Amino acid sequence: MADLRIALAQIDTCVGAIDQNTAAVLEWTRRAAAEGADLVAFPEMTLTGYPVEDLALRASFRRAAWDAAADVAAQLEREGLGHVTVVLGTVGTSESALPEGAEGAEREVSGAPADLPTNRAVVIQHGKVVASYDKHHLPNYGVFDEFRIFAPGTEPLVLEIAGRSVGIVICEDIWQDGGPVTTLGGLDEAGHGLDLLLVLNGSPYEEGKGHVRTELAARRARETSAPVAYVNMVGGQDDLVFDGGSFVVAPDGALLTSSPQFVEDLLLWDLAERDPATGEVPYPAGRTAAPLHPDEEVYRACVTGLAGYVRKNGFRSIVLGVSGGIDSALSATIAADAIGGQNVVGVSMPSTYSSEHSLDDAADLAKRLGADYRVQPIAPMVEAFQGELALEGVAEENLQARVRGVVLMAISNREGHLVIAPGNKSELAVGYATIYDAGSIGGFAPLKDVDKSRVWALARWRNNAALDAGEIPPIPESSITKPPSAELRPGQTDQDSLPPYDLLDEVLDAYIEHAEGRAELLARGFDPEVVDKVVTLVDRAEWKRRQYPLGPKVTSLAFGRDRRLPVTSRWREPVE
Amino acid sequence: MADLRIALAQIDTCVGAIDQNTAAVLEWTRRAAAEGADLVAFPEMTLTGYPVEDLALRASFRRAAWDAAADVAAQLEREGLGHVTVVLGTVGTSESALPEGAEGAEREVSGAPADLPTNRAVVIQHGKVVASYDKHHLPNYGVFDEFRIFAPGTEPLVLEIAGRSVGIVICEDIWQDGGPVTTLGGLDEAGHGLDLLLVLNGSPYEEGKGHVRTELAARRARETSAPVAYVNMVGGQDDLVFDGGSFVVAPDGALLTSSPQFVEDLLLWDLAERDPATGEVPYPAGRTAAPLHPDEEVYRACVTGLAGYVRKNGFRSIVLGVSGGIDSALSATIAADAIGGQNVVGVSMPSTYSSEHSLDDAADLAKRLGADYRVQPIAPMVEAFQGELALEGVAEENLQARVRGVVLMAISNREGHLVIAPGNKSELAVGYATIYDAGSIGGFAPLKDVDKSRVWALARWRNNAALDAGEIPPIPESSITKPPSAELRPGQTDQDSLPPYDLLDEVLDAYIEHAEGRAELLARGFDPEVVDKVVTLVDRAEWKRRQYPLGPKVTSLAFGRDRRLPVTSRWREPVE
Repeated sequence: MADLRIALAQIDTCVGAIDQNTAAVLEWTRRAAAEGADLVAFPEMTLTGYPVEDLALRASFRRAAWDAAADVAAQLEREGLGHVTVVLGTVGTSESALPEGAEGAEREVSGAPADLPTNRAVVIQHGKVVASYDKHHLPNYGVFDEFRIFAPGTEPLVLEIAGRSVGIVICEDIWQDGGPVTTLGGLDEAGHGLDLLLVLNGSPYEEGKGHVRTELAARRARETSAPVAYVNMVGGQDDLVFDGGSFVVAPDGALLTSSPQFVEDLLLWDLAERDPATGEVPYPAGRTAAPLHPDEEVYRACVTGLAGYVRKNGFRSIVLGVSGGIDSALSATIAADAIGGQNVVGVSMPSTYSSEHSLDDAADLAKRLGADYRVQPIAPMVEAFQGELALEGVAEENLQARVRGVVLMAISNREGHLVIAPGNKSELAVGYATIYDAGSIGGFAPLKDVDKSRVWALARWRNNAALDAGEIPPIPESSITKPPSAELRPGQTDQDSLPPYDLLDEVLDAYIEHAEGRAELLARGFDPEVVDKVVTLVDRAEWKRRQYPLGPKVTSLAFGRDRRLPVTSRWREPVE
Repeated sequence: MADLRIALAQIDTCVGAIDQNTAAVLEWTRRAAAEGADLVAFPEMTLTGYPVEDLALRASFRRAAWDAAADVAAQLEREGLGHVTVVLGTVGTSESALPEGAEGAEREVSGAPADLPTNRAVVIQHGKVVASYDKHHLPNYGVFDEFRIFAPGTEPLVLEIAGRSVGIVICEDIWQDGGPVTTLGGLDEAGHGLDLLLVLNGSPYEEGKGHVRTELAARRARETSAPVAYVNMVGGQDDLVFDGGSFVVAPDGALLTSSPQFVEDLLLWDLAERDPATGEVPYPAGRTAAPLHPDEEVYRACVTGLAGYVRKNGFRSIVLGVSGGIDSALSATIAADAIGGQNVVGVSMPSTYSSEHSLDDAADLAKRLGADYRVQPIAPMVEAFQGELALEGVAEENLQARVRGVVLMAISNREGHLVIAPGNKSELAVGYATIYDAGSIGGFAPLKDVDKSRVWALARWRNNAALDAGEIPPIPESSITKPPSAELRPGQTDQDSLPPYDLLDEVLDAYIEHAEGRAELLARGFDPEVVDKVVTLVDRAEWKRRQYPLGPKVTSLAFGRDRRLPVTSRWREPVE
């Protein structure tokens, strides 16, 4: 019995791009085979992309995905690669696809689809799909909707490959106690246990999640007395970022080898043969990726999310408003790192209230990034509106902001750039933004899940990284150090209306991310006045957003939890 | 044993408005008691409103809702109404709230909330909550997300009230075979069966669903050999409309009494005592509501949805662009029926391409509705933009459309009206609209789920209804009869770019609502050229929408199925 060479193919798929995903599977299998791999494993739902949402309910899509698995098998056999075992993810059709006790007729009556598909792993050998496994645990919280679109599997799968027993499960199956992993931990009739647990994943990035994943896998390794090979997808898909970071842990939980985050990678690892003298299996260590600094990790997640969004939607360039402020400076820098500074258009749109140094900072930023820089005054358009409408106060402030939005959309229509929105999480949470303005229109908001304190930290980290590399820091120092202002009236600063951002962000985190009520916030020691101010601002902002649900639906990185709130709701956290 | 008088309180609740919903429960209980009711039943999740979505995951909200149930009990007792049995819906806390085999610690690890609440019915008697029932079947398809936010109940509930056995279940529990209803069908140890099955519902409106509900209830009545009393909520809530239509069916399935749709109602029905001579229970019939004409039903659903949205979000008036075309004419008429013509502002925003008769029709419409009518030319603003940007072609068309959007938002900011969007379902499906224009910005799109053929049918129905009532038809005849045009360039009509609407709408229904692929569409006999054109338009429109997810998120009536599609997807239905 020779070593079994495992290849974990950490690739970047695209939802719905079945042909392209199929081509990627073939290409990475060839590469793995050239490295001597016996078994190549791909991430969850490789051929369809992930997450597919209600696309799974369209029969013609399911048929195409299923055909693609057969095509992969046939093509590999034609190329003489039939001896390689390939494990990949796709959508399955289920004969017994009805959830918990429902009967077909009733499902039709109730409006629920009667033939839910499955989230499936298939095993390809010698030109055929030889086995399949349907995911048991379908997550239905946070960013996940799987119980909506899939039927759960009920059978475990253990493959025999070159004399080894390889158990296969999918993502959430190892996050829940019980279920398929428990079954796999036992010995077979001949007294043999599992030799490898292979886990196919589409595990979205959250800050610090890497440790949680390896610790969880270590626990499952100890439970099954087998090494665990964990292959994760990488790349931006809609509002999610997948960070890769595939790895193998030994039965004692030790990390043996790992892929870096945020890049495609082929991780090779040998499942060695049993030592005939000791009866033990040695578990060799391979290369491991050093953990990233937290600011670098978040920054690279932002770049990965935006880069994926641009490429997968067929754009080649980005346009955004640049004000000289920190949000647009950081957004432009992320854009330049994602698709190259020469593909970024920064438009400065000064009003009568814009300061001179703001214009200088915006021009300086564009120069450092190598971006296309334009100045488009908005006064003529604002005056034309004002000549007709004579607006005052907030209506006038909003008008300026919306004229900027129309300018960006017009440039986008004329030249084909994707408009991006630089609004950050803190501002959006407290409603410090105008609906349909240049900070909130567009296709992607790279800072939507980054609070203002983190915006500054990421800007500093990025500049320092440039200095360390002997490059010019991309962000003008004064954009980082000056007090933030919307510049919609003379002398305005954010702190006229908001608590200091470091305090604001702490309260927001507790109130929004941890869903704490007023009592819990006070118990943490926050000043009651600040708590009531922030709670009131957030509830009011959510109410305003609900009033205009046709307004910005911000799509960005799901670092935090996804919340689905009713549009019309009178609920307000009680304040004094 | 006297007759047991049942009152079904078909009321309009608001999500999150716990105080207001509590006051409504008290008021309708007093009213029912004054009519001699022994048992008053309210719709699903009465105190919290329905659907609450992720608000259910906020502990302070759950505590407030739970306190409200105790407050209702105490207040009724204080008022001398403790003898009335009240059954209402709220959110419950569950000790054993973890779904399928999960363990608390693991749920925390995986990011799923460990303490999911329940969708609960409580029974109030003599100042106390004396019993509770947690919904077993949690729908998780179409517009429903309940499996995401609730833990399923496992125990049935049968109340003894004045010598009768009353089973209580919630909505989806009767849509699924098996489960609590089956249990309730048996006889107890003394050989007694169920005397009444009471169902609390939050069942959203779909066209023709009334028949499905009564037929389903009839089947459950026959299964349990008991009459079924079905109480449904009424009113608009976000993108859903609840149509009421509460009813009672006899054990043989016959309809005994029913409430009208789209209004609050108190339906009284007596569960009679057993005839001592025959041993039979007589089932008296009461008033029944005549079914509505399909066009009237859809029209009233549109009015109910918009009226609820305006009132529940604290608005008192509506502003919309009126072009003289059929979509804005019907939208304005729905708005006038929802909140009164005097609370509607119609803004005509002519461009150089607007025809004279369009202006006349818009003015005529406003006069018929008693609406505030204004003319706001857009040429000065368009010229100011063009002086700076020199746009051509589609970019120029879009500019005109977006300037209209900015005008409406400015008027809304200045005067506090809700902006509504007149775009219809056919246009939105094929992308015949501009992102951020006057047809797609705003808070509510009353025609979003009404296809263009139906738009004309509703307009004709509404005018005929006025004639039948001896009133002036609200919609100018020429708005109904003239060929539809966006008037963004000279001589433009919709049919320059689109198939005839009756044909288009048939293909859209099959392709979108029924998720049929090209093969199925051709098998229905549609012309291949039309199929490929429509499929290409829809796929392209969805792609464009995906490129601008920060654009219109249209919130309207869920007549059809809700679809959740990935933002970034390369999937296109294959065409020739």
